[in-house]
Amino acid sequence: MSLNPKVVCLGGGHGLAATLAAMRTLTSQVTAVVTVADNGGSSGRLREEFNSLPPGDLRMALAALCADDDWGRSWAEIMQYRFTSSGEMDNHAVGNLLLTALWDRDHDPVKGLERVGQLLKVVGKVLPMALEPLDIEGKFTNNQKTISVRGQVQVAAATGRVSELRLIPSKPKATPQVINALADADWITIGPGSWLSSVMPHFLLAEQAEQIQASTAKKIMIFNLPDKTTSDEFAGFSLEAHLQLVLDHLPNLKIDIALIDESVDGKEPGFVDLVSRCGGKVVAFDLADAKQNFHHDREKLISAFAHIFG
Amino acid sequence: MSLNPKVVCLGGGHGLAATLAAMRTLTSQVTAVVTVADNGGSSGRLREEFNSLPPGDLRMALAALCADDDWGRSWAEIMQYRFTSSGEMDNHAVGNLLLTALWDRDHDPVKGLERVGQLLKVVGKVLPMALEPLDIEGKFTNNQKTISVRGQVQVAAATGRVSELRLIPSKPKATPQVINALADADWITIGPGSWLSSVMPHFLLAEQAEQIQASTAKKIMIFNLPDKTTSDEFAGFSLEAHLQLVLDHLPNLKIDIALIDESVDGKEPGFVDLVSRCGGKVVAFDLADAKQNFHHDREKLISAFAHIFG
Repeated sequence: MSLNPKVVCLGGGHGLAATLAAMRTLTSQVTAVVTVADNGGSSGRLREEFNSLPPGDLRMALAALCADDDWGRSWAEIMQYRFTSSGEMDNHAVGNLLLTALWDRDHDPVKGLERVGQLLKVVGKVLPMALEPLDIEGKFTNNQKTISVRGQVQVAAATGRVSELRLIPSKPKATPQVINALADADWITIGPGSWLSSVMPHFLLAEQAEQIQASTAKKIMIFNLPDKTTSDEFAGFSLEAHLQLVLDHLPNLKIDIALIDESVDGKEPGFVDLVSRCGGKVVAFDLADAKQNFHHDREKLISAFAHIFG
Repeated sequence: MSLNPKVVCLGGGHGLAATLAAMRTLTSQVTAVVTVADNGGSSGRLREEFNSLPPGDLRMALAALCADDDWGRSWAEIMQYRFTSSGEMDNHAVGNLLLTALWDRDHDPVKGLERVGQLLKVVGKVLPMALEPLDIEGKFTNNQKTISVRGQVQVAAATGRVSELRLIPSKPKATPQVINALADADWITIGPGSWLSSVMPHFLLAEQAEQIQASTAKKIMIFNLPDKTTSDEFAGFSLEAHLQLVLDHLPNLKIDIALIDESVDGKEPGFVDLVSRCGGKVVAFDLADAKQNFHHDREKLISAFAHIFG
């Protein structure tokens, strides 16, 4: 492969941040493409107050791309810092406020992110998947009863079998710079992360999904780690169900690598078949963070990506 | 004089920022010592919510010391940026939030300022004159009626002859790093700025005032420009009244240079005598910003300081 490949990383939240923190050690040409449907916490409040994009997932991506020296780590830490008070600032993250300030001033989400990227001297760049705030809506079936759930927070908390997952507005415009980055990429990574709120939105936005499919870049889908402690978003958590949900929206998607944790390797023959039908192969590595349940370990991800990149 | 002299600049608000913006071009060893009695606007709200120092004047000093390149100017601009909304973030300045976040986390005002200084790569350093938020109180006499006024905003808006100006609490502890910087300084500058709220507090804190008086540094007092558009804080605005107010609290203060605008030069013989009794001389320069009434021009201040430094 080329040295310093162009890599576009799709996702949102902690999962995307884990991928970015690893990827930035392997290439400086990394572009994060981030979901913009968050409606909870500090992001939800700022989104409502300023009618802006929810900044939280974008902030996390910026923090993950901060320079890997004392100065950069200091900035990353402060971007992530949340106020604690009994007043109006409580729970706001510093980086959310910095992003919102730039947007409030310039009314240009992409320019604001670029500016913050320069101020923090981040590696690569961070782009929002759309230029307007989105909502996510899905139908969840439990015991033959189906309810409609709207809002990222609400969708993430919902249980049961999901169907009719969609974005609101239903046909948002993709970010032009994202489309260009996808067209120009050597590699595209997808995930890990909360599948419904951080991964699926990338396939629900038609223009972006088509560009992912059309791209000649090699595609790595990074699956979540097994997590026994939370109720997952799928009835009977399975890797196959994760991939099938993507294929439900983009049936002809080709993937090259399905990166899974070695602890689940070989447990789902159906998954291996499905990956194969997508033109790809399953690659299993030890990926789990020893200290944080359900979190990918940065050094282990670096090893896995380096192996995949050859 | 020595190259790159150690200069301590006392003040608050826009006046101190003007001095710093000029001084930082003449030396990298500049220390701003900033009043902490603001109780209005964004600073007042944050002070109340976090029981912290009011960050606004400290933020302005940091912005004035940001690096003089595109990156530094960009940071200075963003530190100063204020949100506009109909919600909880309205009027908060970004730099105020950044400072408050560091204080909220570390509970150490000096360390937080040092950290922000490093993050913004500022020239010199910024110190608060005390480690706890202060209030200012004074008696104002109008038409033989005397009222007591408390709070920096309220004092700045009060009219009449002022007496019994004091800090609350009445004997705050000076910041140890300030005392050291004053002892070690080659030059000390005082002002310009709102005399009651930005200059006088430095002489009301006994420990700091004594150190100013005891310091062997040469002292420059920078007087305000004539301003015909506002009611000033003194009955019959006069340079002499400004200096006398300082001497009322620190009778043995020696000053070396009284820097005034050339437009008021020669208009107050009593002022020249008073400066002379303090051991100093009056130096008049064209200092006024052509575009902003009552503001010192940065380039003109640089010339004046360069001349004074020899």
